[in-house]
Amino acid sequence: MTDAYIVGVDMIKFGRFPEKSVPQLGAEAALLALDDCGLTIQDMQALYCGNLGQASAMVGQRILQQIGQTGIPVVNCANACATGATAFREAWASVKAELYDLVLAVGVEQMGRGLLGGGAGRSGIPREGLLGSGTMPSVFAEAGMEHSRKHGTTFEQFAKVSVKNHHHATMNPKAMYQIETPLETVMNSEMISYPNTKLMCSVNVDGSAAAVIASERKARELGLMDRAVKVRASVLTSDPWQERDLVMPDVNTCTRTAAAAAYEMAGAGPDDIDLVELHDCFATAEILHYENLGLCADGEAGRLIDEGEVELGGRIPVNVSGGLLSKGHPLGATGIANIYEVSTHLRGEAGKRQVEGARLGMTHVIGLGSACGIHILERVA
Amino acid sequence: MTDAYIVGVDMIKFGRFPEKSVPQLGAEAALLALDDCGLTIQDMQALYCGNLGQASAMVGQRILQQIGQTGIPVVNCANACATGATAFREAWASVKAELYDLVLAVGVEQMGRGLLGGGAGRSGIPREGLLGSGTMPSVFAEAGMEHSRKHGTTFEQFAKVSVKNHHHATMNPKAMYQIETPLETVMNSEMISYPNTKLMCSVNVDGSAAAVIASERKARELGLMDRAVKVRASVLTSDPWQERDLVMPDVNTCTRTAAAAAYEMAGAGPDDIDLVELHDCFATAEILHYENLGLCADGEAGRLIDEGEVELGGRIPVNVSGGLLSKGHPLGATGIANIYEVSTHLRGEAGKRQVEGARLGMTHVIGLGSACGIHILERVA
Repeated sequence: MTDAYIVGVDMIKFGRFPEKSVPQLGAEAALLALDDCGLTIQDMQALYCGNLGQASAMVGQRILQQIGQTGIPVVNCANACATGATAFREAWASVKAELYDLVLAVGVEQMGRGLLGGGAGRSGIPREGLLGSGTMPSVFAEAGMEHSRKHGTTFEQFAKVSVKNHHHATMNPKAMYQIETPLETVMNSEMISYPNTKLMCSVNVDGSAAAVIASERKARELGLMDRAVKVRASVLTSDPWQERDLVMPDVNTCTRTAAAAAYEMAGAGPDDIDLVELHDCFATAEILHYENLGLCADGEAGRLIDEGEVELGGRIPVNVSGGLLSKGHPLGATGIANIYEVSTHLRGEAGKRQVEGARLGMTHVIGLGSACGIHILERVA
Repeated sequence: MTDAYIVGVDMIKFGRFPEKSVPQLGAEAALLALDDCGLTIQDMQALYCGNLGQASAMVGQRILQQIGQTGIPVVNCANACATGATAFREAWASVKAELYDLVLAVGVEQMGRGLLGGGAGRSGIPREGLLGSGTMPSVFAEAGMEHSRKHGTTFEQFAKVSVKNHHHATMNPKAMYQIETPLETVMNSEMISYPNTKLMCSVNVDGSAAAVIASERKARELGLMDRAVKVRASVLTSDPWQERDLVMPDVNTCTRTAAAAAYEMAGAGPDDIDLVELHDCFATAEILHYENLGLCADGEAGRLIDEGEVELGGRIPVNVSGGLLSKGHPLGATGIANIYEVSTHLRGEAGKRQVEGARLGMTHVIGLGSACGIHILERVA
């Protein structure tokens, strides 16, 4: 069983590109990732594509129409907000299965404007089954309030998550926004669903990200190990049946089971992780996931944000990319964009926002409906 | 690297079920396949779901809501008419990668009425990129005419494909139609796009099929090898760029490259194959694929149908299930329904339509846009 390595990875600057097609956006990230490792589409043996809004419409093949139709297998995956992570994981599995030595994973989404789950928008995602009875903002608002009731978490603590992530994004040229956003601004922005104001909701943007995954043999043969990133764990879970907490049906449990499985697969624990990109679709969600991912004990999440442990320079920096709150959240791209961010730190190439000496990083996405994807990545050189 | 075996496989009787939901239809096939091997959803370690019409809407997870939410990973795949084959192949790859020992693959589609590609219908499949400039009937009509020009293939020969497949379906209780359909009836039915009459077009039906795939170790441990079917080859291709034959952009080439790869992976050739389920979305397509799959030399397809070589009892029976022309073609289900059919013959359980002594069988699907999936399956016991 070979190990699998990320040898090329990149993303476009997230933004709003109504003039472009979904395959165009995907092709841009694909070419960037290929360029990152000096390979071309002719070198790739398979393509795994993650897109949600046009999941029926052969987006992967249409990307190949733009960058080169070489006849390779194309698999199109969709898994709500875990779509990109799922495409990456299927690509990784194909290398682990020794079907291929070099595969390309692309995640792409064209979101248009508006609030996540606030309406079908251009992404055209059917709401049946995906959102259930609540809208995204209300589900994550109630989950935050539940955390407040149990642990006394304050509106200010939730708001600080957004301040932190917006600050991080000022150092990320590929983030949608690079604007310092003070606490008062976050707290005074339009209230969407208490305690999440508008600046505590992820940003709907268009975006794409891509990764080239290689078998160990091929990565060595091509001399690509210097900047390679090892995939130490790749885990996907769904919502287990349980005595349901009606306000928060699945986000917590399926993240906790995924985290436990990922730590076991990686042979590592939360204390070994140097940075985390987690699914801050709302500020309240980030607070929950500090505990779900074991970054602190249950009830300690408010303290974590108050004491700066999750800021760049702190004990365990979280969402140094700016996160979904400021980098933006193009659903199908997010999972691979997270992998790009962590890989960039492990390679020591993150510039001003570099987490110094990062050796092991974690990415986390969660799609309601349900799917949780976690990857643990390791610096090689 | 473990071998992977189909240990349970089944399909629902194809039909029209407007009162049911897509997840309900999928759940029915899943339970049948689990029952076929005496296992339950609690035994499954992952679910791979193929559905095209609701590809964005977490169909796999919604199937689990009906048959048991155990927290397992769910991957939703879409690949036009190769959707089911793609889901099966991803499931197979996860076993080959030794991620899991027991996985479930489900393919499901709710089509409603009408002609394939003749309108969006209830499946709601976006046409951009999927159909290109032509409708399905016109693309496959022109491809048939091209074959006529080159090889003298006659209207009657194309029509005989439909007569044969309708005859086969009379012996398949799970086919949509079990009606003997004489040559005159086929030739005199409504002309859709010459040379394909209405009875030479695949039947839009609702349907589902599912398979349980096990690692060799697990299949032996559970005592399931007696009825197990070995996956000797699993291949997926897309359309390579070429000097385009404008009337037939990809169906031929990507089937030919897939067939060559599948024969190589299986260590077998066309002469070793005992039965084939191929993608007869139109009668003209079946004629093309005799040659594309190497069942005869180029130009010999008309002779093959005239001489009965592809009928039950002939040299190489094709579409003994009734094929898409009479069994029906629920897009996301078709790839796994083909695998059910071939597996049933390899197990010697096909009743009146049994291909005697079948040891090696092939399934083939092709989705325009493009994806060709081929599996070669082998009897174990």
